[in-house]
Amino acid sequence: MLIVQKFGGSSVADVGRIRNVAGIIAESYLLGNETVVVLSAQGDTTDELLEKAAEINPAPSKRELDMLLATGEQQSIALMAMCLEGMGLPVVSLTGWQVGVRTDANYGTARIRRVDTERLRRELDKKRIVLVAGFQGVNKFDDYTTLGRGGSDTTAVALAAALHADRCQIFTDVEGVYTADPRKVPGARKLEEITYDEMLELASMGAQVLMNRSVQLAKRYGVELEVLSSLVRAPGTKVKEVTKNMEEMKVTGIAKDDKVARLTAVGVPDRPGSAFKVLNAVSRAGINVDMIIQADTTASTNDMSFTVAEADADAAYKALTDRQAAIGFDHVTVDKSIAKVSVVGAGMMSSVGIASLVFEALNDEHINIQMINSSEVKISCVIDAASADRAVAAIHRKFFET
Amino acid sequence: MLIVQKFGGSSVADVGRIRNVAGIIAESYLLGNETVVVLSAQGDTTDELLEKAAEINPAPSKRELDMLLATGEQQSIALMAMCLEGMGLPVVSLTGWQVGVRTDANYGTARIRRVDTERLRRELDKKRIVLVAGFQGVNKFDDYTTLGRGGSDTTAVALAAALHADRCQIFTDVEGVYTADPRKVPGARKLEEITYDEMLELASMGAQVLMNRSVQLAKRYGVELEVLSSLVRAPGTKVKEVTKNMEEMKVTGIAKDDKVARLTAVGVPDRPGSAFKVLNAVSRAGINVDMIIQADTTASTNDMSFTVAEADADAAYKALTDRQAAIGFDHVTVDKSIAKVSVVGAGMMSSVGIASLVFEALNDEHINIQMINSSEVKISCVIDAASADRAVAAIHRKFFET
Repeated sequence: MLIVQKFGGSSVADVGRIRNVAGIIAESYLLGNETVVVLSAQGDTTDELLEKAAEINPAPSKRELDMLLATGEQQSIALMAMCLEGMGLPVVSLTGWQVGVRTDANYGTARIRRVDTERLRRELDKKRIVLVAGFQGVNKFDDYTTLGRGGSDTTAVALAAALHADRCQIFTDVEGVYTADPRKVPGARKLEEITYDEMLELASMGAQVLMNRSVQLAKRYGVELEVLSSLVRAPGTKVKEVTKNMEEMKVTGIAKDDKVARLTAVGVPDRPGSAFKVLNAVSRAGINVDMIIQADTTASTNDMSFTVAEADADAAYKALTDRQAAIGFDHVTVDKSIAKVSVVGAGMMSSVGIASLVFEALNDEHINIQMINSSEVKISCVIDAASADRAVAAIHRKFFET
Repeated sequence: MLIVQKFGGSSVADVGRIRNVAGIIAESYLLGNETVVVLSAQGDTTDELLEKAAEINPAPSKRELDMLLATGEQQSIALMAMCLEGMGLPVVSLTGWQVGVRTDANYGTARIRRVDTERLRRELDKKRIVLVAGFQGVNKFDDYTTLGRGGSDTTAVALAAALHADRCQIFTDVEGVYTADPRKVPGARKLEEITYDEMLELASMGAQVLMNRSVQLAKRYGVELEVLSSLVRAPGTKVKEVTKNMEEMKVTGIAKDDKVARLTAVGVPDRPGSAFKVLNAVSRAGINVDMIIQADTTASTNDMSFTVAEADADAAYKALTDRQAAIGFDHVTVDKSIAKVSVVGAGMMSSVGIASLVFEALNDEHINIQMINSSEVKISCVIDAASADRAVAAIHRKFFET
């Protein structure tokens, strides 16, 4: 089998962890698998490099930042190679350009255009373990680029797709994907399997196991992912197109996202196009709007509320107030003390009663629902942030613990 | 003018020093020069990376070590680029492979085969300051290599040669090349100019200003070097083929090397080939022998002494004793408490009386000369290490302070 394994920064943070990961890699190789391993920078290396940069220039160019950051993963692969060499195993480490990870020129958030597999295949044919620096590539100018948040996951999925790997294992510090955050909900259960779409909804809802981008890539190329722990030897969660339990299991998981904010434009004129103008002002500032609600307040005006990522709240506020006179609303309010709780499941919409169970759970706990949104695979409710953990636990009990 | 500047690790050790160096670079650029800058890794970075490696594997492959070490210079150039960006200057940083520094495959001690100047020229044509990671290149397999000690100097000279630079400035923490070590000899004078050959002798005699390798390269390609301080703005020392003072100035400098050891094979049979066998035993162990002296002791045997680098003394001892029976000498003694004091000057041999002045100086100080060696441009004396500084000062007084 050809297996791509990916280990994050905390999995290689120190010598002890590097040795632990080397053991996992060695096991895969010694079982006869062609083994390609993608590594992130050690522990806090990336943050330390960013601090160093900020000390010299608070606003460096992204090109030079990528030049700096790319060294973190390069150090990881060299150190891991040395560890595997010490175990007597044949190994070679390769940076993004050596592997042929070709990206566009968007420094800091580059997208992979192509992976040349020639060097990879050559090294695998020599029966070597191949260690690859994640998170990085080179653009058409032969300049270093980095892939942004979750970039190493993306590298792993892209390599798995290019090599037609049999498996792509994403090792993390959790044992898999759970029905809810196991640190908060004691009854949370590890899922054996989950579909790409469910995973995408859970990821975007704040379950920080896999970044959306790598799941999307895996879905597009049909790469079967497995999320598992680098510390506990146990089967993880498989992420794939169709899961065997799809018919029985209507709800897959409950997720919470408290990094959201709600903005309300108060007194928007009740004229065609007003709502568009409000949302357009925000979109043009490059900010994604998530949930939207509009309420009639007087005969001639409406209040219009929408949610954005908390980090974008101030920029959205500015974008709106800049256009206040042109659009003609009264004022804008911002509420950062909210959270979005979501119930995710591929078979959800074909089934009745899911929404009412959610509402019942929240009602039992006297939690007020401020906004509601639903798609084919999820129902999301915006509630007071202080009630969020209680809400997740209550919903989880309704679906999984009765 | 096209100027190549090189700054060592201590010159970029922290933010303050980076800013200082950025000022020097900016000055060159703003005077209208095409400016290419070669940087080493910051301060102790390379040693720290070596320690990290040793913790994981005491004997890692040189390939992976080079992969690890190459990150140090990459960080330096990125940080310096950010600093120059902060000053509003156009700048681009390039690693060894981006510049096209092509080397042989001797990891850890690679030799430069070729420098592709295409990218460099392109960046210079865009009126950018070009920062280059020193000490590194790539071999024909596209794997990272490092150039060994003094590698960044070598990179600078190689770039200057390839670009036909008008100047190659090597910035260090000293103000230039002195007639003797200024920390030890208060009367030491900075030399305005010195020939390549004199510099080579001074360097190999322990004046740690420039590594021999980069001086040899500069000589071969006629690259005029200037050694100067990154901390004190003052003209440094020019290293070139012919110096204007050559006729007048017979002696250029006095150097001391106390990292030497003397081995003596006692009771070597007085037969043809015996001396060869002794030296051959040492050479075959890969050890360079420097000064050699043979003394008749009895009618049938000689004592044979020679010097080697102190780091090689134990290996030379072992190589000799292993061949003791075959060669037939009595025993070997090792003396590590010696030093070599050398007087260097291109016009020396054509002039009479230099040697006698040296002997007179040592005699005045009651310092015993154990061995003597001379070449076209130097006279070296082996003496007791404890007397070395006193010897240098005495010889310096004879030639420069009277």
